[in-house]
Amino acid sequence: MKVHIWGASGYAAAEAIRLLERHPAQLGVLESRSHAGERVGDHFPLLRRSPLQFDKESVIENARAGDVVVSAGGHGEAKELINALLDAKVRVIDLSSDFRLDDRAVYGLTEWNRAALASANLVANPGCYATAALLAMLPLARFGPPLQWIVDAKSGITGAGRNPSVGALYAEVTEEIRPYGLEGHRHEPEMQRALDVHGLSAPLLFTPHVVPLSRGLLADVYALYEKPPSEAHVRAAFEEAYACSPFIRLLETTKAPSTAAIARTNDVEIHAGMKGNAIRVLCAVDNLGKGAAGQAVQNLNVMLGYSEETGLHERAIVA
Amino acid sequence: MKVHIWGASGYAAAEAIRLLERHPAQLGVLESRSHAGERVGDHFPLLRRSPLQFDKESVIENARAGDVVVSAGGHGEAKELINALLDAKVRVIDLSSDFRLDDRAVYGLTEWNRAALASANLVANPGCYATAALLAMLPLARFGPPLQWIVDAKSGITGAGRNPSVGALYAEVTEEIRPYGLEGHRHEPEMQRALDVHGLSAPLLFTPHVVPLSRGLLADVYALYEKPPSEAHVRAAFEEAYACSPFIRLLETTKAPSTAAIARTNDVEIHAGMKGNAIRVLCAVDNLGKGAAGQAVQNLNVMLGYSEETGLHERAIVA
Amino acid sequence: MKVHIWGASGYAAAEAIRLLERHPAQLGVLESRSHAGERVGDHFPLLRRSPLQFDKESVIENARAGDVVVSAGGHGEAKELINALLDAKVRVIDLSSDFRLDDRAVYGLTEWNRAALASANLVANPGCYATAALLAMLPLARFGPPLQWIVDAKSGITGAGRNPSVGALYAEVTEEIRPYGLEGHRHEPEMQRALDVHGLSAPLLFTPHVVPLSRGLLADVYALYEKPPSEAHVRAAFEEAYACSPFIRLLETTKAPSTAAIARTNDVEIHAGMKGNAIRVLCAVDNLGKGAAGQAVQNLNVMLGYSEETGLHERAIVA
Amino acid sequence: MKVHIWGASGYAAAEAIRLLERHPAQLGVLESRSHAGERVGDHFPLLRRSPLQFDKESVIENARAGDVVVSAGGHGEAKELINALLDAKVRVIDLSSDFRLDDRAVYGLTEWNRAALASANLVANPGCYATAALLAMLPLARFGPPLQWIVDAKSGITGAGRNPSVGALYAEVTEEIRPYGLEGHRHEPEMQRALDVHGLSAPLLFTPHVVPLSRGLLADVYALYEKPPSEAHVRAAFEEAYACSPFIRLLETTKAPSTAAIARTNDVEIHAGMKGNAIRVLCAVDNLGKGAAGQAVQNLNVMLGYSEETGLHERAIVA
Repeated sequence: MKVHIWGASGYAAAEAIRLLERHPAQLGVLESRSHAGERVGDHFPLLRRSPLQFDKESVIENARAGDVVVSAGGHGEAKELINALLDAKVRVIDLSSDFRLDDRAVYGLTEWNRAALASANLVANPGCYATAALLAMLPLARFGPPLQWIVDAKSGITGAGRNPSVGALYAEVTEEIRPYGLEGHRHEPEMQRALDVHGLSAPLLFTPHVVPLSRGLLADVYALYEKPPSEAHVRAAFEEAYACSPFIRLLETTKAPSTAAIARTNDVEIHAGMKGNAIRVLCAVDNLGKGAAGQAVQNLNVMLGYSEETGLHERAIVA
Repeated sequence: MKVHIWGASGYAAAEAIRLLERHPAQLGVLESRSHAGERVGDHFPLLRRSPLQFDKESVIENARAGDVVVSAGGHGEAKELINALLDAKVRVIDLSSDFRLDDRAVYGLTEWNRAALASANLVANPGCYATAALLAMLPLARFGPPLQWIVDAKSGITGAGRNPSVGALYAEVTEEIRPYGLEGHRHEPEMQRALDVHGLSAPLLFTPHVVPLSRGLLADVYALYEKPPSEAHVRAAFEEAYACSPFIRLLETTKAPSTAAIARTNDVEIHAGMKGNAIRVLCAVDNLGKGAAGQAVQNLNVMLGYSEETGLHERAIVA
Repeated sequence: MKVHIWGASGYAAAEAIRLLERHPAQLGVLESRSHAGERVGDHFPLLRRSPLQFDKESVIENARAGDVVVSAGGHGEAKELINALLDAKVRVIDLSSDFRLDDRAVYGLTEWNRAALASANLVANPGCYATAALLAMLPLARFGPPLQWIVDAKSGITGAGRNPSVGALYAEVTEEIRPYGLEGHRHEPEMQRALDVHGLSAPLLFTPHVVPLSRGLLADVYALYEKPPSEAHVRAAFEEAYACSPFIRLLETTKAPSTAAIARTNDVEIHAGMKGNAIRVLCAVDNLGKGAAGQAVQNLNVMLGYSEETGLHERAIVA
Repeated sequence: MKVHIWGASGYAAAEAIRLLERHPAQLGVLESRSHAGERVGDHFPLLRRSPLQFDKESVIENARAGDVVVSAGGHGEAKELINALLDAKVRVIDLSSDFRLDDRAVYGLTEWNRAALASANLVANPGCYATAALLAMLPLARFGPPLQWIVDAKSGITGAGRNPSVGALYAEVTEEIRPYGLEGHRHEPEMQRALDVHGLSAPLLFTPHVVPLSRGLLADVYALYEKPPSEAHVRAAFEEAYACSPFIRLLETTKAPSTAAIARTNDVEIHAGMKGNAIRVLCAVDNLGKGAAGQAVQNLNVMLGYSEETGLHERAIVA
C-alpha cells in the first residue's frame, strides 16, 4: 500500500510531503507537472533536508487498488483524475473543494466523522475556513440552531495558494487587512451543508479576511439565541465533544487562541464563552495543517487504521 | 494662540507633531519627560526632516488662556494637569480614555458632534476601536436599536503604544493573530455610552484582536434585527449621515475597506451591506490617524474655526 | 507641454502617478495595457483618493514634440516605442535598464549629471541598486580608485515589480533573507560604467539581497585602499559633493541610515566612515522613490527647468 | 546527571527548553526569576504543548557535581553564579558573552573545538554573529590571513532578546533595515580572538544589521587577498573542513543560503565562491538555533558523549 500525492507543488502539498515523509505509510509518486524531476527541497525551504524529488511518473499509472492518493491541486483540476482513480479502487483524499458537496464523498472533518472515514473511498477534505468554523459550531448542536450564525475569520495568505497572483504578493499583503468575498464565498455552502447535517441550520453571515501572516487562521464564531444556554452548559458541550480528540485544546475561559501556538501543527485551540444572549467561540488552526494537509494525514490515519496522531507530532531523533 | 503637545514621545503624539507641523496654527511646547532637549527626528523616522525638538519647558508653565493642549500621554497620567489647564482657561483635547465617560467633556467623534466641539473646552478624543465601530453604527439610529451588536475588530500594534512591553515586540506580533480583552475591554463602556446617547442601546459583544501590522484598524460590525431595514434604506442612511463628511468614503457594495488605503491619513473607508436579518458594516481607519491624532487635529479645526480638512491632506510643494 | 506615463500599472509607475499628480507639469496619457479604463485608485491603495484613470488612448498617438514620457514598463518592453518617441522629438525618461549602457542616453543620477540632464532627450533613469551604491561611491573620486569595491545591498521586494512571480509572494519573502544574482546581476555593468566615467575603475563585488520589507534599499559600500585617506578627508569629500543636493542627508558618524526614514520620499541618508584601510559608506534610498520614480521626477524637474525639489516634498493643504 | 537552565525566560532559553524536552538527558531546574511557578507554554507559543513549568527552586541549590547548567540570562547577569557552580563541579554552558574572552572557558564553536569541548567544565557558547561569521572564515586558514576581512551581517530581531526595548517593538522593526554598532560591537573582539587562534589575524570590518524577521541570521563574509587561491581550492577547503559536520550544508555555487530553510534548526547553509581577488562566503544560521540554543545542545552532546545530532533533528511519533 502506498500514498501518492498529486498536484504536489503547492503549499498544502508541500506540507503533506513534510508530514508523510515522517509517516510509516510508504510514499509513492509525487506528481507535479511543473517541477517533475526536481528536488522538493529546491522549492520549499521547510523541505530543504529532504532527499525526495518530484516524480516524472504519473499517479494514474502507478496507483494500485488499495493505495491512497492525496489530491492537492487547484479547485476543478482533478475531477476526472479522481473519478478514474476511484474506478481503479484507489482511495482518494481530495484537498480541493470539488467533492465537498458531493454525496459520494465522506466529509473529512475528522473529529465529527471518524466512523465513515474509516471505510471511505473518497474523502472531501474540508476547507480551512470551514474546518475552523465547524469545529467551533458543531458542539452547539445539543442546544438547537441559533437565530443567527456569524463567522468572522482571519487567514494567513498561504490559503490563497502558491500560484502567483497580484493579491498574494508581499507588497499587497503587508500592512493590509483585506476582507473579501462579501458577495458570497466558496466556503459558505460547505459550512451550511455541515450545519444542516447536524441540525444547526440557521442564517449564516460569513466574512473572510486576509491578514499579513503566512500560516494560521482564526475563526471568531458568534451564535445568537433567544434563550441561550448557560456558560457551564456551553463549556460542557465542548468538553464532551472533544474529550477523545487529541488535537483539540479547549482553553480556560480567560485565554485566547494563538495562531503562533498552532503553526506547523495539526493542533486546534478553542475558546468558548458567553456574553448576554450570544455564544462566542474562537478557533485557531494552521490553514495548511489542520486546515489542509494535517487533517488529510489525520484522515489517512483513520482510513488506514493508524492511531489518529501518527505522524502528526514531532519528537527528536535520539542517536 | 498656540497648540501645545503634552506626553509627546508616543506614537500618537508623533503623528500629532507630524500633522501640526504642517498646520497653520502655531505650535507651542512639545513636552516629553523622557526626550526633553532631543530632536523629534532622532526618535521617529517619519519626522526625520523636522527641525523640531522636544522642549525642556513645560506645557503647564507656557500655555495661556485660549491656547489648546493636545494631551497624548498614557491613560491616567494627565488628569491633574488637565484640570489645572482647564482652570487656566486653556482648551484641551485629550487622547487618553480619562474623560470619555466624563460629563464635562465633549466626545470628539467629529462627524457626530461638530456643534458641541466648536465651543468645547475639554474634548475627549475617542479611542481607535470606538471611532471605527461608532462610525459604522451611528448611521443606523433611524432604524432603532438592533437585537444585538457584534463588533469584531482587528488593530495594528501601534495601538498598544510605544512604551515597551513583551506583547508589542516584533517576535510576539509577527505570525500571530491575538484576540484579547475577552473578559471586557476599556472601549466597551465608551461605545455603549455613545450608543445610549444615539438611541441604539443593545447588548454589545466586542472582540478586539491584534494583527501583525503597524498602523490600521478594521472594525466589522454586525447588527441583528428581527425586522431589518432594506439594503437600500441602509445605504441611504449612510449616504445621508456622511454627505458632508469629507473624510468618509462609502464604498460600492462589492468593495471592501483597505487599511493600506487609509494608512497615514484621517480617511475612513466604509462598506455597508445586508444579508438576511443582519446588517454588516466594515469600517477601516488608521488607529493613529482618524483613530487618534488625525481626529484630534480634525477636532482642533472645528474648535478653532478652520475648515475641517485643514492640515489633513497632503500636497506637494511647488517651488 | 505634457508628461505621459507608459507602462503605468507597476509599482514604480504608481509612485510616478502619485508624485506627478501633485506636480505643476500637466499630466497627459497614463497608458496601461492591462488596466485601460480603470481607476488608478482601484489598483493602488496609495492612490485611493485619486480621480485619475488609466487611459484607453496610447502615449504614442498623443505625445507631441516637447512632451516628456516616463517609460515605466519592464526591461526590454519599450525599446521600439522609445525610439519612435525620440524620432517625434518627444523627450523620454526610461525607468528600465534598456538604455543605461547606451551612449545616446544621459545617465539620470541627478546629483552627478545636472548639466547634461537639463538638455537631455533620453534619460536612462538609474536602477535602485546603482542609485544607492553610486551615491555612496562617487564622492570618493578625489582619492582615486580603491583596490576593491564591495557592495552588499538589501532591498525591499517591490524592486521585483508587480508582475506576479512565486519569489515575490508574501509567504516566500517573509522570514527570509535572500541573496541572489551570485553569478552576476544586471546592475553590475551599470555601476561599473559609472565608476569608469568617474575614474573609479576597480574590481567590484556586488551582492544583492531581498529582505522582508515592501519599500526601501540599503547599500553598504566598502572600499579598500592601500593608503586610505583620513576620515576627515572622506567626510569633507561627501560634504562638498552634496553641499547643493537637497535630498541627501549626511548623517553624523555615530548614526546609521534608516529605510523607514526615507520611505515614500526622494530622500537619501548616508553614513560615511572609516576603519583601518577601509572606507565604509552606508546609503539608504526608497527603491521606488529615489531609486525609481522619485529620481525620475527629480530629473524631470531638471529637464524642464523647475526647482529640483518641485513635487517631491509634501505639505498640508490649508483651506 | 541533570541539565538545568538558568535565566529561563528569554528566547534562547525557550529554544533550549524546546530542544532539551526532546533530549534523552534529564531536565533539572528551569529557573526564571520573573516566571517562577508558571507554565512555559503560557509564555511561549512554540512550547504550548509542554507540561513543563518554570521552577520555584533555584539552580544553585539543586545542581550537583557532574550536572550541566545552561546559563541563558543576559550579559553580565550570571558571572557570580557560574563561578559558584564551577566550584561545585557543575559544568556550565554559558550563552552570554561573559566568558568568551576568558581563558578558563572552552569556546563552543562545536565544529572547530570538539576535542576540548568533550572535557570542558565551562563552555562559552559563541554569539550568533560570531557563529555565522567564523563558520564562513575558519576553513580559509590554509590560505593564510587575507588583507582584510569584511563581515556584513543581517539578523532577525530575536537576537536582541525578550527584555522589552523600544528598538525591538514591532512598529520599529517592520519596514526597517537597521545597521548598528558602527563604532564597534561586542562581537568583534570575539571574532578577532578566534581568528587569531586560527592564524587568520587581519583587519576586520564588521557591520551588523537588524532586518524585519523573527529568527535567522545571514553573514556575508568578504576576504580580500593580494594573491587569492583558486575557486577549486576554496571549495575543497570547505569540503574538507566540514566533511564530518552533519549540520553544515555546502551549497552548489549557483545557490544561496536561505534563512527560512534553517529556521528552528541547528543547520547551517554555506555558499563559498570567488570573484577577482575576493572570496565571498555567505553563511545562514538560526540566531536562536545554531546561533544560541541549538549549538548549546550540540555542545552538550559533545560534553556528555552523545552523538552530536542527538535531540537536534525532528521526526514524527509513530503510535
